[in-house]
Amino acid sequence: MSQIPKILVVGCGPVGTMCSYSLQNSGRATVTAILRSAYDDVEANGFHIKSIDHGEVDGWRPHNISRTLDDALQYGPFDYVLVALKNLPDVYSIPDIIRPAVASDKATIVLVQNGIDIEQPLIDAFPDNVVISGVPLIGCEQNGREILHNDPDILLVGAYTKNPHKMGQGKLTCSEFAEIYTAGGAKCEVKENLTWFRWRKLCWNASFNAICALTNLDSGLIQDAGALETLIKPAMGEVAAIASAAGYQLPEDIKEQMVAFTPRELYLKPSMQVDAIRGRPMEIEVILGNALRIAEKVDVDAKLLGTLYQLLKAKQRVLLSAR
Amino acid sequence: MSQIPKILVVGCGPVGTMCSYSLQNSGRATVTAILRSAYDDVEANGFHIKSIDHGEVDGWRPHNISRTLDDALQYGPFDYVLVALKNLPDVYSIPDIIRPAVASDKATIVLVQNGIDIEQPLIDAFPDNVVISGVPLIGCEQNGREILHNDPDILLVGAYTKNPHKMGQGKLTCSEFAEIYTAGGAKCEVKENLTWFRWRKLCWNASFNAICALTNLDSGLIQDAGALETLIKPAMGEVAAIASAAGYQLPEDIKEQMVAFTPRELYLKPSMQVDAIRGRPMEIEVILGNALRIAEKVDVDAKLLGTLYQLLKAKQRVLLSAR
Repeated sequence: MSQIPKILVVGCGPVGTMCSYSLQNSGRATVTAILRSAYDDVEANGFHIKSIDHGEVDGWRPHNISRTLDDALQYGPFDYVLVALKNLPDVYSIPDIIRPAVASDKATIVLVQNGIDIEQPLIDAFPDNVVISGVPLIGCEQNGREILHNDPDILLVGAYTKNPHKMGQGKLTCSEFAEIYTAGGAKCEVKENLTWFRWRKLCWNASFNAICALTNLDSGLIQDAGALETLIKPAMGEVAAIASAAGYQLPEDIKEQMVAFTPRELYLKPSMQVDAIRGRPMEIEVILGNALRIAEKVDVDAKLLGTLYQLLKAKQRVLLSAR
Repeated sequence: MSQIPKILVVGCGPVGTMCSYSLQNSGRATVTAILRSAYDDVEANGFHIKSIDHGEVDGWRPHNISRTLDDALQYGPFDYVLVALKNLPDVYSIPDIIRPAVASDKATIVLVQNGIDIEQPLIDAFPDNVVISGVPLIGCEQNGREILHNDPDILLVGAYTKNPHKMGQGKLTCSEFAEIYTAGGAKCEVKENLTWFRWRKLCWNASFNAICALTNLDSGLIQDAGALETLIKPAMGEVAAIASAAGYQLPEDIKEQMVAFTPRELYLKPSMQVDAIRGRPMEIEVILGNALRIAEKVDVDAKLLGTLYQLLKAKQRVLLSAR
């Protein structure tokens, strides 16, 4: 590995941009970011970031920016390929997208994405590489070069690999990555049992996200509508039952915990509801589809999640076939 | 009963208007219709009807029109009070609305409405009256005074009453009503087992209507999306199971029958989807809520219908509280 690791960030939405910022701000990494719609504006003016972690920063640019992954290769070879793309296996293949940037088995792939069981396609496609799986706990929004980062950036990470001989190195690499990230002013914590944290976050995503998207009611209105008891908590209960059968026991009061950090007076639109409103693809496969495939393997009945999935999938199929 | 029966029609949407037309066209009834938004236009110009049963008729008016039920009372007392209002027990009480027009136990109440178990509130409120329950099989649309009636009017009717001594008279009255209706150029058939026909129609309404409303996909797109097998037919199967446990055995191939008369190439928006788009209340209580209450009584598990109901109910609650 080079002295100063080279990091490619694929997917510079608000989360990818905040990852880029922390990594670069550490002074311990060179960051290359792929920008699409915001490229011209960021090249001319840089990002304007208002961050609960980093304060207000105007004119900030990643070390290198590119319009495409092919263009970005000139700044490689990369030690880390960080993927903060929306996770849409029914729309595109992330292994196919990043393959040109994964120059050798020395490259570490970092996923900063939602969902469950999202490591497997990467592990299968790059069996000798280390995959750092990251669960982002962050609140941020983007409008072109403007980034509003209003909920602290805590990234939970863990190492995965198909090659058992790589596991030792994988853990070291994961620690190195977490140190760099944390040195940049955000928090990155290595978790031995990262999948447990994925299940925990899935409790929220599979319930609030899916139900708000289907009803077009935000996180407050859905509570005003009395759906906590009829839909939200039952959906969480099914996630917890699948997780438990798969070996990841969530706390007894997981539903109450999840509801507690969703104050109704905020009336927030979860990302999947925003996608539904804008006619954009939703992350239903990694949030609901993968959970249901695991449910089948571990023989857990998850009828409510199944119905939510099929309703959203019907919408998504028509959306995708119209594109 | 007077020589020429007096009929009050409450709810002159497209279905109520076509009922009024047939009854009046028979020459064997005096029809008083309550009009709201279309009153001025119909008073000035009459209805303009293009009907698959009656041909094109312009300038047609019911014998009497009124803006309110109170105004209409001057044309009574009525032998029949026909209700073709949207069936929304979570929004208003139909017994309360029609009570002033039900002058005595001689008045027969006629329901021309969707849903299951919709007779009970009327039977309870008017225990000594006859209730004729009608399942409308008709396709028609309205825009002000313009009525497009493009699928034949077949009204299936049966008599109900709480007072067992009234059942004989009830059957006679039901036959008389059907004769008048049919004499007007449409079809009205007395069915001994009307509730069976309600369950049969509910198979379509509880599936296509509810699922199209939730996904905002019409009857064709929902099929293109592959939802016949994942959602539509399973929902129909639950309706058939409830009906069967309640004593109403539907045909083995009920699902295929229902799909067969829903050609995907028509791409029709079911009424509940239209209501969802326009932000109007949907008939979820009489279509899903009542079916689920029966399911509980007869101990049938109807999880899919339950989820559809709760999702729609959440939308409806927020809609109603905003009104």
